[in-house]
Amino acid sequence: MNTFGKYYRITTWGESHGSSIGVVIDGCPAGFLLSIEDIQGELDLRRPGQNKLTSPRQELDRVEILSGVFRGITTGTPISLLIANKEFRSGDYEQLKDIYRPGHADFTYHARYGVRDYRGGGRASGRETAARVAAGAVAMKLLEQAGIGVIGFASSIGGQPSVPGNPFAKGFKDLIALKNARKRIYSSKVRTTDPALAEKMAAVINKAAAAGDSVGGIVELQAHGLPAGLGDPVFGKLDGLTALALMSVGAVKGVEFGDGFHLAQLKGSEANDPFMVTKAGEIQPAANRAGGVLGGISTGLPLVVRAAVKPTPSISLEQQSVDIKGKPVSLTIDGRHDPCIVVRIIPVLEHMLNLVLADLLLSRRAGQGELP
Amino acid sequence: MNTFGKYYRITTWGESHGSSIGVVIDGCPAGFLLSIEDIQGELDLRRPGQNKLTSPRQELDRVEILSGVFRGITTGTPISLLIANKEFRSGDYEQLKDIYRPGHADFTYHARYGVRDYRGGGRASGRETAARVAAGAVAMKLLEQAGIGVIGFASSIGGQPSVPGNPFAKGFKDLIALKNARKRIYSSKVRTTDPALAEKMAAVINKAAAAGDSVGGIVELQAHGLPAGLGDPVFGKLDGLTALALMSVGAVKGVEFGDGFHLAQLKGSEANDPFMVTKAGEIQPAANRAGGVLGGISTGLPLVVRAAVKPTPSISLEQQSVDIKGKPVSLTIDGRHDPCIVVRIIPVLEHMLNLVLADLLLSRRAGQGELP
Amino acid sequence: MNTFGKYYRITTWGESHGSSIGVVIDGCPAGFLLSIEDIQGELDLRRPGQNKLTSPRQELDRVEILSGVFRGITTGTPISLLIANKEFRSGDYEQLKDIYRPGHADFTYHARYGVRDYRGGGRASGRETAARVAAGAVAMKLLEQAGIGVIGFASSIGGQPSVPGNPFAKGFKDLIALKNARKRIYSSKVRTTDPALAEKMAAVINKAAAAGDSVGGIVELQAHGLPAGLGDPVFGKLDGLTALALMSVGAVKGVEFGDGFHLAQLKGSEANDPFMVTKAGEIQPAANRAGGVLGGISTGLPLVVRAAVKPTPSISLEQQSVDIKGKPVSLTIDGRHDPCIVVRIIPVLEHMLNLVLADLLLSRRAGQGELP
Amino acid sequence: MNTFGKYYRITTWGESHGSSIGVVIDGCPAGFLLSIEDIQGELDLRRPGQNKLTSPRQELDRVEILSGVFRGITTGTPISLLIANKEFRSGDYEQLKDIYRPGHADFTYHARYGVRDYRGGGRASGRETAARVAAGAVAMKLLEQAGIGVIGFASSIGGQPSVPGNPFAKGFKDLIALKNARKRIYSSKVRTTDPALAEKMAAVINKAAAAGDSVGGIVELQAHGLPAGLGDPVFGKLDGLTALALMSVGAVKGVEFGDGFHLAQLKGSEANDPFMVTKAGEIQPAANRAGGVLGGISTGLPLVVRAAVKPTPSISLEQQSVDIKGKPVSLTIDGRHDPCIVVRIIPVLEHMLNLVLADLLLSRRAGQGELP
Repeated sequence: MNTFGKYYRITTWGESHGSSIGVVIDGCPAGFLLSIEDIQGELDLRRPGQNKLTSPRQELDRVEILSGVFRGITTGTPISLLIANKEFRSGDYEQLKDIYRPGHADFTYHARYGVRDYRGGGRASGRETAARVAAGAVAMKLLEQAGIGVIGFASSIGGQPSVPGNPFAKGFKDLIALKNARKRIYSSKVRTTDPALAEKMAAVINKAAAAGDSVGGIVELQAHGLPAGLGDPVFGKLDGLTALALMSVGAVKGVEFGDGFHLAQLKGSEANDPFMVTKAGEIQPAANRAGGVLGGISTGLPLVVRAAVKPTPSISLEQQSVDIKGKPVSLTIDGRHDPCIVVRIIPVLEHMLNLVLADLLLSRRAGQGELP
Repeated sequence: MNTFGKYYRITTWGESHGSSIGVVIDGCPAGFLLSIEDIQGELDLRRPGQNKLTSPRQELDRVEILSGVFRGITTGTPISLLIANKEFRSGDYEQLKDIYRPGHADFTYHARYGVRDYRGGGRASGRETAARVAAGAVAMKLLEQAGIGVIGFASSIGGQPSVPGNPFAKGFKDLIALKNARKRIYSSKVRTTDPALAEKMAAVINKAAAAGDSVGGIVELQAHGLPAGLGDPVFGKLDGLTALALMSVGAVKGVEFGDGFHLAQLKGSEANDPFMVTKAGEIQPAANRAGGVLGGISTGLPLVVRAAVKPTPSISLEQQSVDIKGKPVSLTIDGRHDPCIVVRIIPVLEHMLNLVLADLLLSRRAGQGELP
Repeated sequence: MNTFGKYYRITTWGESHGSSIGVVIDGCPAGFLLSIEDIQGELDLRRPGQNKLTSPRQELDRVEILSGVFRGITTGTPISLLIANKEFRSGDYEQLKDIYRPGHADFTYHARYGVRDYRGGGRASGRETAARVAAGAVAMKLLEQAGIGVIGFASSIGGQPSVPGNPFAKGFKDLIALKNARKRIYSSKVRTTDPALAEKMAAVINKAAAAGDSVGGIVELQAHGLPAGLGDPVFGKLDGLTALALMSVGAVKGVEFGDGFHLAQLKGSEANDPFMVTKAGEIQPAANRAGGVLGGISTGLPLVVRAAVKPTPSISLEQQSVDIKGKPVSLTIDGRHDPCIVVRIIPVLEHMLNLVLADLLLSRRAGQGELP
Repeated sequence: MNTFGKYYRITTWGESHGSSIGVVIDGCPAGFLLSIEDIQGELDLRRPGQNKLTSPRQELDRVEILSGVFRGITTGTPISLLIANKEFRSGDYEQLKDIYRPGHADFTYHARYGVRDYRGGGRASGRETAARVAAGAVAMKLLEQAGIGVIGFASSIGGQPSVPGNPFAKGFKDLIALKNARKRIYSSKVRTTDPALAEKMAAVINKAAAAGDSVGGIVELQAHGLPAGLGDPVFGKLDGLTALALMSVGAVKGVEFGDGFHLAQLKGSEANDPFMVTKAGEIQPAANRAGGVLGGISTGLPLVVRAAVKPTPSISLEQQSVDIKGKPVSLTIDGRHDPCIVVRIIPVLEHMLNLVLADLLLSRRAGQGELP
C-alpha cells in the first residue's frame, strides 16, 4: 500500500538504487502557483552531506515536475515528481546481498515478498522519504494559503539533552514568523531550538560516531494556524492519521500527542484543559496538555506531537546475524551512514504532517454544509 | 471517515443515545462458522457494570447479526451487526447541552460540523467502540484459523504500579494457552497479569474515585502466532496501521512499539536485534526490542505495542469551562462514569489490533505471488 | 465490495430474506434538514404492489434512521438506515434451494463464495436496491440545495413502443417543475411520459404476464440543473461512474450516453456538438448528442443516459436447468414476480444517478482552488 | 481521480505535451517475470503511424521501468512506468489555445479546473491511454498465469459492415491459440476478424478521411479462460467495473454485455440462458446471451462486451464554435489525427479489461475462505 490520503492522495514509488524515485499527487486543487524551487528547497533540507553530523553521501536530489503544472500553475491533474538516483554505490551492497542486517527490513521484506532488491535497502531505504518530502512541499504550499504552518525540531538526542518546555508556547504572529523560526532551527547543526543544547547534542552524536555507533532521539512537531474543526472521526482523526503518517517513516518507534505518555500518570482534574474565551472573543482551551486535538479534531491550539526515533541501524561496529540460509555471520557496515538520523528525519516528519493536514483540509471543504 | 481497513473493511455508525449503534463488515471471507455467542462474549468483556471499578451503568449490549451469515456460516456478503442502546439517561445531559466539557470533544465536534448530538457525547462517546469490538470479534475468529491471537493487559495505572518485564516472554504453546492467559487477565478486576499488582492498581483507582477524580494508565498489547511477512509498506505498515487503529480510540494519547520511546535513548549497538536460527530451524531476531516489526512488516516474533490512556475526562470534581456562547461556567459531571477507563478499554484495543491483523492477512493473501 | 463513492460513500448490506436490509452513508455534510418522510417517499416509489403491473408482494419497506440525524438535522456523522424485511415467504424457496435458476445469480454466487443464502435470491435479490434508494433519497436532498434534479422514465418496453425524441428537450424552469414532471411520470402505470404510449406498453406487459413470461425495456435518465464542470477524470468521470452505478443494478445489461451507440454510426461532422453562447451569456453546446458530458465532465446541458434492462428472469413458464450436483431439472417459478421490472427499476436507477452526482459534487467542493 | 482498482491499483499521470506520461502500479504480486519487451510489445500495438488508416504521428512510445522490478522479477513494490513524450508539435495548438473545440474536453476542463493545459488536449488527450496500456500489459502477464486472456476486434465501422455472430464462439484451446488469433486481428489494417470485411471497413474510413471527416464504430472484447466466480457484488461487479473501465476511455459513449440492448427487446423465456453440464462435468450456461456474467460474477463462459466509439472529434472540415470569451469562431483542425480511432482504441480497451480482471483476481484470492 503505497498511497497515503483520501483527498490529497500521494503514491510514492522507487527503490534506493533504482534509476529514480518519485511520487504522484492526485487530488491537489487547481489554480495555485507551484515552482520547482518550492519543492527543491524542501528536498535540500533532507538530503545528506549538509554537515559533518550527517551522511557524507552527495545525493543531489534534483526534482523534476513531470505533469500537473502548466506555466507555473497547478492544473488539478496529477502532479508527478521524479528524483533521479544519481550518486549511489551498489557495489557496497554486493557483500551484504545474502545477509540480513540487524535492525533493517532485509529479512522482513524477504519474508513478505519472497524476493527483494537488496541494494541500499531497496524500497525500505530512507531514500524513499525524499518522494514524501517532495509531495509534502506541495501540500505545504496549499496549507500556506489557509494560514497553516508546520515546524519541527530535535527535542532530545541519545536520551540526554532535552529541550525544556515548549519553545513556541507564545505561538507565531504569522506564517512569516514561523518560517523564520524554522530557518533558525535548520541553521543549527542538530536542528534544535537552543544553541547551547545544540552543542551538547552534537557532542553526543560525535561521540557515538567516533565509536562506530549511532544514537536516536526525539523529534517534536507543531502545527500552527490550525482552525478548530480539522479531523475526520472516527478513523480519519487528526491524531490517528498523524500517527499513521509518522509511524510510516522507518525509524519511528512511537508517537505521542500533547503530554502523551505523561498523561497516563495524571488525574482527570490535572489532565483536562478547561475552556476559556480569548481576548479576541474566541473559545479555546486555556492549556494545551491535549496537544491541540480532542476527539480527533483540532481545538484551534497548536497540534503538538513527538516521535521517538531509533538509532540508525547501520553501524560500523561488528554485529552478529545470519544469512538467508541461516548461517551465522558477523558483519560490519561500511557505508556512509548517518550516526544520528534524527537530524535528517525532521523535514521528513514535518512533511508527513503537512500531508495529513492537506488531506483533512480538503476533506473539510468537501463536507462543509450550511446550517438551515 | 468511518471506515477502517482496505481488505477487511469495517464501517461503524451510531451515537451514544441514538436508538442503536452498529457496524458493517465488508470483505470478510465466506465459509467460516460464526455465531452470536462469538461476538457477544467479546462485547461482554467491554460493557460496563462488571465490577466496582467500572461504571455502574447497565448496558446489556446485545448484538444482533442482521446479514452476511446463513445457517451459522459467513457467506462473503456484508456482515451487519447492531447493538440496541437500551439503558441510557439522556436527561442527564440536558443541563450540559450548551456546555463544552473539558477533555471532551463537545467543542471540536461543534467546530467541525456546526451541529452536534450532545446526548452522552454523541458520536464521540466511548460507546461507539462497542461496534468496533463486535467487528473485531469476527476478525478474531478469522485470525484464529491462521493461528494468530491477541492479548492485552493493564501495564500501569495512574503512573504507579507497573508490570515489570514481559509477562509473556516465553510465548504460548498454542492459541488455547493464549486464551487461558487472557481469561486469567479478565478475571482480574483491573485486568492485569499479577494479582499483587492488581490490588495496588485497584487502590489507586479507588482513591481517585473516592475523591471524585479519575486516573489513566498504560495498556500493553501483544499479538502471538504472527508469521514473518505481515504488513504492507510503505503506508500500510503493521506498526503504522496499528498506531492509526489505537489512536482512533478516544482516550489514547500515544503509542509505542517494542522498546518504543526508550529506543530513542539507546545506541544502535544496543537497539539492534541480531538475527539467529531457532532450534526449529527458523530465522528470527534473537531479541525483541523492535516489538516484532521491522520496516513495517512482522518479524515472526510477537508484536508488542503499548498505548497511553488519559484519565477519564468526566469527573465529579468541579471544573471551569465555557458554554457555547463563551460564558464562563463551572460544572460537575454527575453521570455514572468509569474512574479509570483503562480497565474497559483493553478489549477495545485488543480488537482494534485484531482488525489490523485481519486486514493485513487478507492483503497478503491477495498479493502472494509464486516465484518463477 | 459493497461501498460506492469516494466522498459521499454508501455501504449497503442485507439479504432478501434476512431480518432487514440497510445502508450506511458516510461523508454526508452536516447541517441540512432530513426527515424520514424524505426517504420513505422515495422508497414508496420502488416498493412492489403499487399496481397490477408490478409484483403483488406487499413489502411495506418502512425505513428507520438509526444515526446521523439529530432533531431533524444531519450531523455529519454516518447516517444508518434500516428497512425491516417484513413480508417474505422463504418457504417458496425451499424447493429451489439446490437449483440454479436460469438468468439468476444462484450459480455464480455459489462459485464465488462456496456458500449462499438461497432464500429469495439472497444478496443478489433486487431487494438490496431498496437500501440504495434510501441512500439516494438523502443524496437527492443534498443535490436539491445545488439546484440539481434527476428524472427517469420508461423509454421502451419489450422492444416495441418507444418514446420519440427527448420529452424534456425544453428543460425545466426550476426543480419544482422537474418534480411535477416526475410526479406525472410516476402516476403513469408504466412510468413513461406519454399516456397513449403507456397504454401500449401496459398491453405488452400484460400479454407477457398472461403467458407466464416477462419483458424487458429501456430506461432513460436525465439530470437537470448540472453546472458545467462536474466529473473527475480520468477514473472518476461523470459517465464512467454513472455506468458503474447503473451496471451495478442486477438487470441492467448496457448503458449509453447521449446518442450512444448511434454515435458509432455517424461522422465526426455530424456527431460533434458545436459550442454557442446562450442569451444569458453562457457558453454551452448548441446540441446535446454528447448527452451532457465531454471528457468525463458535465457540459452544463442535461446528462442523458439510457439503460438496457433485461426481462425478469423469474418466469412461470417451464425452464430447463441443473441442480448443484449437475442433475438436469425442469422448473417453474411460482413466486410473485414482476412481469416487467422496468417499472420498478426506474426509481432505483434515478437514485443511483443521484449517488454519483452527490459524490462528484462533494469532490468538486474539495478540489475547488482559487486562481492566483 | 486518477487511480483505478482496489487490489491491483494503477495511477496514471501526464499530459499530452508534457515531458512524459506514466503510471504507477501498486499491489502487483511479487515474484513473476516481467521485461520491458512485455510492455513495449503492447504499446507498439497502440501507437500511431502503423498504417495509412491511423495518424501519421511518429510517437515512439519507449517505456522505461523505473521501479518494482529487480533482475527481471517483480518485487511486490510499486512498478513505475514512464513514457517520454518525444514527437509532438505544441505549436500546432497555439492557434487553438483560446478556442473550445467541438467534441473535445477543452470547455469542460476549463469549467472544472479554471485552468488547463491546452496543448494537444492536455490531460484529456488520448495519449494518456498509453499509460493504461503499459499497466494493462503487466496485468496481462499476471492473468496469463491464471490462464486468462483478452481479445478484441472492430465489430463495425461507421455503422456499416458488421462482424456477424461471434467469431470466437468455439472458444480457444489455450492461451497460445488466443494469442495467435489476436495476432491475426492485429495484422488486419482495421483490426477485425474477417479479411473481406476489413476491406469494406477500410473503404469507409478512407472515404471519410478523404472528405476531411471521421467515423466511429463498435469494438467487441472477449475474455477467455475466466473461472466461474470472478466479480465482487454489489459495487465491484465484473460488468460494473468493466463499464467504468471502458467508459473512462474518452471516445466511448456506451457499453453492453452479451446481447446487451437487444435483451431489452426479448422475453424472459428467450433471454435466460439455461444451465447444463459439459462433457467435462462442469456446470455452465448452455448459451451466452448474458455475456459471461450473472449478478456481477463470471459464469465461466467468455465475458463478451461491446463498446460504442464515437467518431474522432478532430476533423479538418470547418466547424463552428466559440472562444473562451464566447466570441463565435469557425475553425478547421489541421493536426495529424486518426480518421477512425476505433483501430487504435482496441488495445486500450483490451488492456482496460485486463486491469479489471487482474483487480478481481487478486480480490478473489484475498477473500477465498475454506468451507468448514
